[in-house]
Amino acid sequence: MTRSLDLNCDMGESFGAYTIGDDAAMMALISSANVACGFHAGDPAVMRNTIRLARAAGVVVGAHPSFMDLYGFGRRRISGERPEDLEAQLIYQIAAMQGMCAVEGHSMRYVKTHGALGNMAATDPDLAALCVRAVRAVDPGLIFVSLPYSETFTAAQKAGLAVACEIYADRSYTDAGELTPRSQPGAVIHDPVQSRDQVLEMVLNGHIPTSGGKRLPVEPATLCIHGDTPGAVEIARGLRAALEENGVTIAPFAQP
Amino acid sequence: MTRSLDLNCDMGESFGAYTIGDDAAMMALISSANVACGFHAGDPAVMRNTIRLARAAGVVVGAHPSFMDLYGFGRRRISGERPEDLEAQLIYQIAAMQGMCAVEGHSMRYVKTHGALGNMAATDPDLAALCVRAVRAVDPGLIFVSLPYSETFTAAQKAGLAVACEIYADRSYTDAGELTPRSQPGAVIHDPVQSRDQVLEMVLNGHIPTSGGKRLPVEPATLCIHGDTPGAVEIARGLRAALEENGVTIAPFAQP
Amino acid sequence: MTRSLDLNCDMGESFGAYTIGDDAAMMALISSANVACGFHAGDPAVMRNTIRLARAAGVVVGAHPSFMDLYGFGRRRISGERPEDLEAQLIYQIAAMQGMCAVEGHSMRYVKTHGALGNMAATDPDLAALCVRAVRAVDPGLIFVSLPYSETFTAAQKAGLAVACEIYADRSYTDAGELTPRSQPGAVIHDPVQSRDQVLEMVLNGHIPTSGGKRLPVEPATLCIHGDTPGAVEIARGLRAALEENGVTIAPFAQP
Amino acid sequence: MTRSLDLNCDMGESFGAYTIGDDAAMMALISSANVACGFHAGDPAVMRNTIRLARAAGVVVGAHPSFMDLYGFGRRRISGERPEDLEAQLIYQIAAMQGMCAVEGHSMRYVKTHGALGNMAATDPDLAALCVRAVRAVDPGLIFVSLPYSETFTAAQKAGLAVACEIYADRSYTDAGELTPRSQPGAVIHDPVQSRDQVLEMVLNGHIPTSGGKRLPVEPATLCIHGDTPGAVEIARGLRAALEENGVTIAPFAQP
Repeated sequence: MTRSLDLNCDMGESFGAYTIGDDAAMMALISSANVACGFHAGDPAVMRNTIRLARAAGVVVGAHPSFMDLYGFGRRRISGERPEDLEAQLIYQIAAMQGMCAVEGHSMRYVKTHGALGNMAATDPDLAALCVRAVRAVDPGLIFVSLPYSETFTAAQKAGLAVACEIYADRSYTDAGELTPRSQPGAVIHDPVQSRDQVLEMVLNGHIPTSGGKRLPVEPATLCIHGDTPGAVEIARGLRAALEENGVTIAPFAQP
Repeated sequence: MTRSLDLNCDMGESFGAYTIGDDAAMMALISSANVACGFHAGDPAVMRNTIRLARAAGVVVGAHPSFMDLYGFGRRRISGERPEDLEAQLIYQIAAMQGMCAVEGHSMRYVKTHGALGNMAATDPDLAALCVRAVRAVDPGLIFVSLPYSETFTAAQKAGLAVACEIYADRSYTDAGELTPRSQPGAVIHDPVQSRDQVLEMVLNGHIPTSGGKRLPVEPATLCIHGDTPGAVEIARGLRAALEENGVTIAPFAQP
Repeated sequence: MTRSLDLNCDMGESFGAYTIGDDAAMMALISSANVACGFHAGDPAVMRNTIRLARAAGVVVGAHPSFMDLYGFGRRRISGERPEDLEAQLIYQIAAMQGMCAVEGHSMRYVKTHGALGNMAATDPDLAALCVRAVRAVDPGLIFVSLPYSETFTAAQKAGLAVACEIYADRSYTDAGELTPRSQPGAVIHDPVQSRDQVLEMVLNGHIPTSGGKRLPVEPATLCIHGDTPGAVEIARGLRAALEENGVTIAPFAQP
Repeated sequence: MTRSLDLNCDMGESFGAYTIGDDAAMMALISSANVACGFHAGDPAVMRNTIRLARAAGVVVGAHPSFMDLYGFGRRRISGERPEDLEAQLIYQIAAMQGMCAVEGHSMRYVKTHGALGNMAATDPDLAALCVRAVRAVDPGLIFVSLPYSETFTAAQKAGLAVACEIYADRSYTDAGELTPRSQPGAVIHDPVQSRDQVLEMVLNGHIPTSGGKRLPVEPATLCIHGDTPGAVEIARGLRAALEENGVTIAPFAQP
């Protein structure tokens, strides 16, 4: 039996004179690129260059929309905004990325919500529905990347969007299947062996090991690779190798 | 013989809590709306609402991309930027507008460059070519709105874009067919009668009266209506009435 | 017995080409101007002009720092930021305003936190302490404007800052002495007579009437006048007249 | 005879999640830090931390105001702005830095204009006078750092500001004493030996060698060290060592 997994990573987060991440190196290791849309990071030229890099590497592009928050890199939680304002912001970002991909002869195949927006939507059904509406408004054929056991997963399925189930190597899970909040001990897995084992357990055996000792069923489509941690490229290389050694093919969940 | 002229006006320039212009009133008078793309003015929700207003009024939408300059409202002249950066910025804006129009079931049919960008491109062949490249990259079927006797007009024609020739009611023209720079006396025509007569001369007789007494041939497709001057709506109403009284049909230069 | 009350109003919220509020008319009615510092509204030239207007009118200037959120006009609730980042942002804004006042030969005498920041700090002791720290860092002689029965009031007193107790004419109060949240019915008082009576009750009799029928003691120093509601200038004029007819002198709580 | 020279370097140019330059290493080599004020780079927390670093290292702080242009890192040439707007922007930046320094118990002793603003002001007498006005408005005791043979040098002297004459190691000079424009061949000196020799010539012999073979008199107060070129720290170390070997003491031009 052949198993396949996608590796996705945040890309194109440089801005003007500011550079972040080693996109060129990472592009060789992943199969899907979550490209920043200019609201939390990225700028039009960075977007265009990132799409070109992805196309050249056979990597699928997804839009990575965010709160409008360059200063906070999209990591600040913003609330009290009119829902129609946020919905329009997401449509704007996704549409700009789609158009930029078209210009470069590459397809945008999916959307993943970024940072605080993604975290908040995962547990807020109204916000989850808003994100799904924005994606569908631009193109109902887009795939929605989401954690399982989340409001976004539920909302996307309910709205008829295809969903790519995303897993994490370096984050532990609660018994409810959610990522353990970073404020709690054990939220981040620093040991690369434990990280690798968690991924293999999820991919090969189809269940999430939780901090309470449960095993929740999961059908992972894509593994989130972090690009901005020290040694990110090495960690990604290690995870990719471990997966391939265990018979897992690294391939995008959508055709480029 | 039936003559037809388009009336275009800058629209959707509000931003967040800030409102500018009386878009609802103006939309009833014009046939084409130059919608701000969020770089010099406008925000995603404003864009979306403006497109809805336009669609409801049967008004054609065009993208109105600009320098990235909210503080300066796109009126500051910016140079020393890498051409590829500016080109990507224009593509981003046009693509975002196109996608937003698609979401609203309306078509974006043209591009007009805004403010300082437009003024600089009109006399700078490299910048004019850059603007035309950006438009073509998104969609070679887009119409380029441009002053005649300008580098943008020449560049658009050379690149095979359809060009809609734009005239002004309240600006005088030099013998070279360019707008008299605002720094010179007589650049702005304040007298509504003189304004009206200039427009009728251009539309009915097909030539531009210049400050040196020349008559330059012109085939106007669209008249620029200013929305942010005091009494803008009244002025627009007067020009529209004068045109209709002289047998000119007000209609968009492109089908909505 | 002579009573005195300050009238404060948000000022200097225009930005670039965007105008908001009728600052010139309002300046004649108030005694203290909360001047935006460029983060949620205002820009350096607007700040400078507003300080000049205030000085000419004998109006005291206070800094009105906010979250860094021009798009949301400082009304979006932002969290998840490092406290030291927010503290530095507040110091930056207050210091810039102080320096700009010095340039114009006017004094900045107080600080009032703006919008969502003010609302959140009123009920969050950590955020309240952060705001107070920022004010003290710039100048421990600054007065802190705050609602009574709030974390900001407590934090400012604890830190030894002078506090100017602020009351509202058009907002009802809970039995805990807090403003009724806008999400609840009766939060906003639309009736000008009821508004006026509430103010007179607080100023002349020294207690806050609450929605549960309690009377909480209060020693009001300043009344918040809203500048961005329709008819704002008329409402302000009415409140001022009602106060003066009842023997209340309108005067700043700090010397200009 | 003891000679003394200041080494100045741009500092505090990180922003939010974005890091630029190795400020900690560079701070040990220089005597004056040009600290970004948040308009082209830097943010309030970065400013505060940079001031702390400088104070701890005994390094003098100067404000480094710029055009409002984070995207372009202050390198884009912006014109067509109302002079009073730009003047207020400079005052705002300088005042914010001054206040932040006061909070940290450190003095801001000088101002150096950044990037495109500095380049444009060096050859534009109106812009030079505007910059000088802004500095004087905040504090006439501030020192103005400027190239010699420039409009800024002349304007600062005429206005009675103390001027610190700045020289470059890696830029060649025209016969007029100006930096050779980067668009011309030979503008940038890539050879470290030639760089060092030019500096020693200027400091020890008191004249600028020009590309046309002239020798223009100069009394250098400070040498500009670039922090964002590859190997910047090594280059700075080399220049410092060469100066010290030739009997030049590295010391700030103003007391910390």
